[in-house]
Amino acid sequence: MEKQFRELLAKMNAYSSAIKLMAWDLRTGAPKKGVPARAQALGMLSTEVFLLSTSDLMETCLCDLEKMDKHESLDEIMKASVKECRRNIDRVRRIPKELYREFATLTAEAESVWEEAKNRNDFAMFRPWLEKIVGMTKQMIGHLGYEKHPYDALLEDFEPGMTVEKLDPLFAEMRARLVPLLARIKSSPQPSTIDLETRCFDPEKQKAFSLKVLERMGYDFQAGRLDASEHPFTIGITSGDVRITTHYDPHDVKSALFGSIHEGGHGLYEQNIDPILLDTPLHTGSSMGVHESQSRFWENMVGHSQSFWISMYGELCSYFPEQLNDVSSEDFYRTINQVSPSLIRVEADELTYNLHIMIRYEIEKALLTDQIGVSDLPRVWNEKMQEYLGLTPPDDKSGVLQDVHWAGGGFGYFPSYALGNLYSAQILQAMKKDIPDFEDRLRRGELLEIKDWLVEKIHRFGKLKSPGELLRDITGREMDSRCLLDYLENKYAAIYPVKESCK
Amino acid sequence: MEKQFRELLAKMNAYSSAIKLMAWDLRTGAPKKGVPARAQALGMLSTEVFLLSTSDLMETCLCDLEKMDKHESLDEIMKASVKECRRNIDRVRRIPKELYREFATLTAEAESVWEEAKNRNDFAMFRPWLEKIVGMTKQMIGHLGYEKHPYDALLEDFEPGMTVEKLDPLFAEMRARLVPLLARIKSSPQPSTIDLETRCFDPEKQKAFSLKVLERMGYDFQAGRLDASEHPFTIGITSGDVRITTHYDPHDVKSALFGSIHEGGHGLYEQNIDPILLDTPLHTGSSMGVHESQSRFWENMVGHSQSFWISMYGELCSYFPEQLNDVSSEDFYRTINQVSPSLIRVEADELTYNLHIMIRYEIEKALLTDQIGVSDLPRVWNEKMQEYLGLTPPDDKSGVLQDVHWAGGGFGYFPSYALGNLYSAQILQAMKKDIPDFEDRLRRGELLEIKDWLVEKIHRFGKLKSPGELLRDITGREMDSRCLLDYLENKYAAIYPVKESCK
Repeated sequence: MEKQFRELLAKMNAYSSAIKLMAWDLRTGAPKKGVPARAQALGMLSTEVFLLSTSDLMETCLCDLEKMDKHESLDEIMKASVKECRRNIDRVRRIPKELYREFATLTAEAESVWEEAKNRNDFAMFRPWLEKIVGMTKQMIGHLGYEKHPYDALLEDFEPGMTVEKLDPLFAEMRARLVPLLARIKSSPQPSTIDLETRCFDPEKQKAFSLKVLERMGYDFQAGRLDASEHPFTIGITSGDVRITTHYDPHDVKSALFGSIHEGGHGLYEQNIDPILLDTPLHTGSSMGVHESQSRFWENMVGHSQSFWISMYGELCSYFPEQLNDVSSEDFYRTINQVSPSLIRVEADELTYNLHIMIRYEIEKALLTDQIGVSDLPRVWNEKMQEYLGLTPPDDKSGVLQDVHWAGGGFGYFPSYALGNLYSAQILQAMKKDIPDFEDRLRRGELLEIKDWLVEKIHRFGKLKSPGELLRDITGREMDSRCLLDYLENKYAAIYPVKESCK
Repeated sequence: MEKQFRELLAKMNAYSSAIKLMAWDLRTGAPKKGVPARAQALGMLSTEVFLLSTSDLMETCLCDLEKMDKHESLDEIMKASVKECRRNIDRVRRIPKELYREFATLTAEAESVWEEAKNRNDFAMFRPWLEKIVGMTKQMIGHLGYEKHPYDALLEDFEPGMTVEKLDPLFAEMRARLVPLLARIKSSPQPSTIDLETRCFDPEKQKAFSLKVLERMGYDFQAGRLDASEHPFTIGITSGDVRITTHYDPHDVKSALFGSIHEGGHGLYEQNIDPILLDTPLHTGSSMGVHESQSRFWENMVGHSQSFWISMYGELCSYFPEQLNDVSSEDFYRTINQVSPSLIRVEADELTYNLHIMIRYEIEKALLTDQIGVSDLPRVWNEKMQEYLGLTPPDDKSGVLQDVHWAGGGFGYFPSYALGNLYSAQILQAMKKDIPDFEDRLRRGELLEIKDWLVEKIHRFGKLKSPGELLRDITGREMDSRCLLDYLENKYAAIYPVKESCK
C-alpha cells in the first residue's frame, strides 16, 4: 500500500500548502471584508487535513507498511514517514474527537477575546475562556498520558523527547547564572549608547537594507519573498516557496532589521530541507526548538555580533547617512546589545529573553498541576517578574495578557524559545571548530559558508533526524546550558565592565 | 437532504476559493521555484472540486431535492441552485471520465507548447497539439449532443441559451455595417492625435490614477485590491475579496488605465452579487458575455467617452503635468479613440475588436464542422484578416498563434467578447432612459449612480437570472445588433468626418 500512502501524503501536503498560502495572505494584505469567508474556508481545509491524517485509510496504510516484510523493503525515508504518521495518529486518536473539535473551536474564538481583553487591559474578560482552555488541556493530558510529569505530554508535541526532568535542571542552571549576571550588568557603569528612537528611518530604505542582508545570508529570492506584516513570521509553503515578513517602524530601525534576520534564519531552514523529503511528513523542521535555534543563531550569534557590524555598518550608513553620521560602529554595536530588564518578551534583549521564558514555563507547570488557578495568574505573573527581572508590570496588558499563546491553547510551546537559544550556542561552538576563521568571515561579511554549514549539518535533514540526534551528530554531546551561559557572560563582559568573572 | 446539499456546496466553494487565491498568487508574485509544486496542488484541488460536483453524493442530493414535494418546499435560490447543479452534472457526466481527464492534461500541457511555439513563431510545432485538441473537442461535442449545430454544444458552456442560429445573423449584421464604417473611417481625413508612446509615464503615478478612477467607479477597496500582473485579470475569491490587476508600461499609459477600468467593471460585478447567493453555484456572473458587458461598458461607454474625460482629464494632467502640458482634452479623447485596423485582438480599438472576434468565430465553426483542417489555419487566418481588416499578418506569431484560448481548449469562448459589446450598448440605451442626465453626470465625474443602476439591474442577481432574462427585464427586448452599431456609427461620425450617413 506504499502507493496509496504516498498519494495520501501528497494530498495532505497539497491541502496544507493551500492553507499556508491562505494564512500568509490573511496577514499580508487580504481585503478586510474577505476575512470571514477566508476563516471559514481555512477551517474546512484544516478539518480535511486533520481527517485525512487520522483516517481509516491512513491507519490501514500504516498497519500494512508496518508489517515486518513490507517494512524492510521500505527506504529510510518511507520508514521514518511511517513512524512519524504513526506517532501522530496514535497521539491524536487518543483524544476523543468531540474534545478535539471543541478545543479547536474554543481556541479559535478565544484568540479574538484575548485580543480585545488585551486592548482593554481586562484580564477578567479573558479569565473564563482561559479557565476552559486550561481545563480542556488537562483533559487532553489525561487522554494523552505521560510517564513522569503531565507537562511532558505537551512538550512532546513541540520538542519530541523533551521532558520536565530534562528541562528543570537546564532552566535552574540558566537562572543560577543569568540572574546574577543581570544584577552585575545593572550595577556596572553603563556604556555610551545612542538614542535611535528619536531618528527617523525611511521604511523603503529599511526594506532595501533587509533585502541586502538576506541576500548575504544566502536566502533565495527565487524561492521566497519578503513582505510586511504586523508581526514578523515565516511560512514554508513548499521548499521552493518560503515567505518571510517583517514589520517596519520608522522610529525603530532595529525592529525590521532583526525581524528580517530572525525570519531569514527560519526561512533558510525551510528553503534547504532536502527536496527528497517533499510530500512526506519529514519536510519540516526537526522541532520547534531546532527551528528557533536557526532564527536565533542568525539574529543573535551573527546579527548581534561585533564582527558582523564591522562589515555591515558601512553599508547600513550608506542607506542612512544622515541618521547615523554621528554614530560609530562601536556605538551602534553597544546600542543594539543594551541589556535592560523590560516588560515585553518580544522586545527583550538576548539575556533577559530567557528569563521571560522561565517565568512562563514555571507558570504553565503550576497551572497544569493545580498549584495555582487561572485567577491567581496576574498576581503570580507580577511576583515572578519582580523576582526575575526586578520589574512589576503596571497593568495586565503589559503583563500576563501580553502573549497570544495561551489563548490559542499553545501550552508547552514557550520552552522552545529558550531551547532555541541553548541549541544555537552549542551550534556556534561546533561551527567554530569547523570554520576556525568564523570571526574573520563575519568581519568580511562572508556569510555563505556559515549558511552552507547549517544546510549540511541541520537543514537538509528536515525531520529525518530528531533534535537529540542532530545535536549529538553536530556536537558529540547532549544539550547543555554551559555553552549559552559562557557565550552570554563573555559577550557582556566585553560590553559592560563587569568587575569579577562570573564563571 | 437540503442540509447535505448545502454542506457540499459550501465545501466546493471553500476549495474553489483556495484555488482562486493560488491562481491569483501565481500571477502576481509567487516565487518562481514554487511554481511546479503550486501547479501540482492546484491540479489536486481542482480535481477534488470536479469530483465533488459530479459525485454520487451530488447526484443523490439532486434526485432527492428534485422530488415534487421536496422541491416545492425549497426557496427560489435553492431551486435555482439545484437546477444549475443538475445542468452541470448532466453535462459533465455525458463525457466519459477518461476523455475528460485526457483533455484536461492535454490542454494543460498544450498551453506551454503554444507559448513556446508563439515565441518561436512556429505554427508547425503547435499543430499536432491543436489537432488533438480539435479532435477531442469534436468527441466531446458528440457526447454532449446538440439540436442544430455542433458549435451550440460549446456555446452552452459560456453563454447558456446562445446558438449559432442566433449568433450568425448578429454577426452578419455587424459585418454588414462595420466593414463599410471602417472603410469610410480609413478614407476620411485623419483628425489630429498625439503620439503618447514617445512620452514616459511613471508607473507609480499610473497606479495612483488608476486607484482614483476605481474609487470613483465605486470599487470597494475593503473588498478588493489592485495589483500588477503581465496580463490584467479579475478574480472573485469571495464577494468580500475581489481582486483586480493591471499591467504598467511607462510608454503606454492607456494600457494600465483601460486595463484597470475594464477589470474594475468585472470587479464591480463580482463585488455586488447579493451575499444571499454565497455558497451556491449562483454566486457568479450570469454568463461570460454578461460579465464581459460589464467590463466593456466601463472601459468603452464610460472610459472612452468624451464626457468622462471632461471631468477626468484635469485630474490625469495633475498626475502627469509635464507629459500632457501640450495636450488638450479633445486631443486626448481623439487619441484614445483612434480607429486603426491592427493585427492583435487585445490591442484593437472599440470598432475593429468585433471584427477580430468574427474571424475567430468563423474559423472555429469551420474547424469543428470539418470545412477546414488545422493545417489550413495559418492560410485561412491571413485570408480573413485581409478580408475583414485589410491586413495580412507578417508571421503566425502576430496571426493565428496570438491567442491562448485554443491551446486551453476554450473553443466557443470568443463570441462572449462580442456579446459583451452587444449587451453593453443595449444596457447603455436602457440606462439613459432611467438616468436622463447620464452625460451630465459623466461630465461631472459622478459615476456612483451608474454603478448603483448596474448593481440594481444586473450585479445583484448573480446567476439567478439568465442572460436572456436580464436583457428582457432591462430592455424589454431580445438581443440585437442595432444598438451597438448605432452607437459606434454615431460615435465615430463625430470623430471622423464621415461624408455620408451610414444608417
